[in-house]
Amino acid sequence: MTPTTSRISLDDLPLRRSLQGQSPYGAPQLDVPFRLNTNENPHPPSQALIDDVAVSVREAATQLHRYPDRDAVALRTDLARYLSARTGVDLDAANLWAANGSNEILQQLLQAFGGPGRSALGFVPSYSMHPIISTGTDTTWIDGTRNADFSFDLTGALSAIEELRPDVVFLTSPNNPTGGSITLDEMRAVATVAPGIVIIDEAYGEFSQGSSAVALISEFPATVVVSRTMSKAFAFAGGRLGYLAADPAVIDALLLVRLPYHLSVVTQAAARAALRHADDTLAGVAAIVSERRRVVAALTGYGYDVVPSDANFILFGRFADATASWRHYLDGGVLIRDMHIEGHLRATIGLPAENDALLARSAELAHTDLVGEP
Amino acid sequence: MTPTTSRISLDDLPLRRSLQGQSPYGAPQLDVPFRLNTNENPHPPSQALIDDVAVSVREAATQLHRYPDRDAVALRTDLARYLSARTGVDLDAANLWAANGSNEILQQLLQAFGGPGRSALGFVPSYSMHPIISTGTDTTWIDGTRNADFSFDLTGALSAIEELRPDVVFLTSPNNPTGGSITLDEMRAVATVAPGIVIIDEAYGEFSQGSSAVALISEFPATVVVSRTMSKAFAFAGGRLGYLAADPAVIDALLLVRLPYHLSVVTQAAARAALRHADDTLAGVAAIVSERRRVVAALTGYGYDVVPSDANFILFGRFADATASWRHYLDGGVLIRDMHIEGHLRATIGLPAENDALLARSAELAHTDLVGEP
Repeated sequence: MTPTTSRISLDDLPLRRSLQGQSPYGAPQLDVPFRLNTNENPHPPSQALIDDVAVSVREAATQLHRYPDRDAVALRTDLARYLSARTGVDLDAANLWAANGSNEILQQLLQAFGGPGRSALGFVPSYSMHPIISTGTDTTWIDGTRNADFSFDLTGALSAIEELRPDVVFLTSPNNPTGGSITLDEMRAVATVAPGIVIIDEAYGEFSQGSSAVALISEFPATVVVSRTMSKAFAFAGGRLGYLAADPAVIDALLLVRLPYHLSVVTQAAARAALRHADDTLAGVAAIVSERRRVVAALTGYGYDVVPSDANFILFGRFADATASWRHYLDGGVLIRDMHIEGHLRATIGLPAENDALLARSAELAHTDLVGEP
Repeated sequence: MTPTTSRISLDDLPLRRSLQGQSPYGAPQLDVPFRLNTNENPHPPSQALIDDVAVSVREAATQLHRYPDRDAVALRTDLARYLSARTGVDLDAANLWAANGSNEILQQLLQAFGGPGRSALGFVPSYSMHPIISTGTDTTWIDGTRNADFSFDLTGALSAIEELRPDVVFLTSPNNPTGGSITLDEMRAVATVAPGIVIIDEAYGEFSQGSSAVALISEFPATVVVSRTMSKAFAFAGGRLGYLAADPAVIDALLLVRLPYHLSVVTQAAARAALRHADDTLAGVAAIVSERRRVVAALTGYGYDVVPSDANFILFGRFADATASWRHYLDGGVLIRDMHIEGHLRATIGLPAENDALLARSAELAHTDLVGEP
């Protein structure tokens, strides 16, 4: 038969107009010694966790011919137990929802509360998928701003919300890629004026000492939604498990837009196994925070400005040429992230040896004209 | 802390207008002896497959802290090998794409090729998620029609396409819930006149003797897309693995809309394990087809009209009261599906004992006034 090698390109397809000329999202997946570009948790799963996942999946696999529990009630019960214990807020399965990564959680939220004729406001630089998922659901994205030092500008945010009346407001705490948190009082002030839903993205919540927005759900049941993930603190990026906490009515709304059977039996079983090892896994968070302090101190010593971070990554500069500097790290086997924030690069906090490699390269660079004011 | 029991309802939320007043999709998930309602494959996975899944996931679990291969190249290579062998069409990884169930495949296609101001045409009754996913992506859904005996009405389809100029045409072969296939010549005729993409949904392809639309990809590279799933013939409904075959340019388009890292390491590993056991699993397809013939013959003997089926289910009637009849089956522990097609119900072909239960209940019903013309 004819081989189906393409002689056509994207331009030959009847692509919807908003996608024409675009290129795909994504950090380069390069095979280098030190991968500090996607904010993964550097600690591999414990043998006990691996064993538990394997045993749990083996048991679940006997039912692979059957559709999974469409509503993932057992998993949501386990997530509620974890989050209640962590935040001190009484939550049960009806308050929780889960999906294949927090990206799918956010997409479902936009499908329910955004859409054509609606708008979403976020304060950039922030998680780059917020505008992408908004646009992907035909929600008009609006760039809000932050203070010059990347901290959250509450006054500016409140003005923007009152002026623009967005249907969706994104808050990210700690903020990716800048690292700072938002206080509970600031979140409450935003929720008080926001006319639509407020999504607080706490993907890096466990790395922060700040209070979770979960405490605001009972105060703003129709609007506050807290998005979280097992990718980071739980070292479960490969397992793809995002979740949210909200009033049960919000979860009812998501049932209208979720694809039926979106979470496989394998994902549900593996995530439940990972949650059983939460105490053990989360102990690694303290080690990462401690390494972050060490890295920040060393970089500061080399003359870099490091944006204060409550997360497992840091944004730092000032690079006279951030792109050339990124390349210099890569040439030394250290893959970090160019977020296209002028003068800055983002590095994930890794294992001590990985951080040493980052610091060694940073020390070299500090003596070149790639670093400093341009 | 305050318990977050809801005192609000869906009506209190700032839900987008198109969802207001809707209720969630989904077959009831009831715990009954005979579940013949969701077209699952009744054969449980072999011990060898379960072992392979468990071993593969154990190995993959060592990397759970890392993001998965975003492009799932190894899995797509395996899928290409399987589909090439099955159809005789030369395909490689660049022709294949995979997602969490064919629902996600279809949603990604609509996100790329549908959307506001665009329309999708399908010939109903057909897979009920086609209009739901179209509407969910703000694509205007248009109900096309079939012949009175539920067979595909080519002449009517061509007229509708020429008149309505839909951006997306859905063909389903074999068609769910009616069971009949569409010939390659009919598909070619549709693809020749369709102004936009033609999605041929072959979720039940392995149960049919008909030719796969994969043979049309090289002829219509910019428009023909073939959606398939491991849920049915592969007995992998719980694993959630849908895939599509198309020209590589179409896969490039999907990279613009897929959520990054949508397929977990666990899903990729489990699906690859299941594909290694394809020969063994697909041997069960013949047993299901043989049981289907037995069930059709018996029901016909009881006086039922059974719509000719190439799939692992049958649509049959004529019920004077389909809803009351559905309840009668359920009262006997046999859960089948009321598709709200006047006078008809749909039953999945199960194991011999399950089919016996369906037949016994059908024999009882045949003597009541629930069966026959109203």
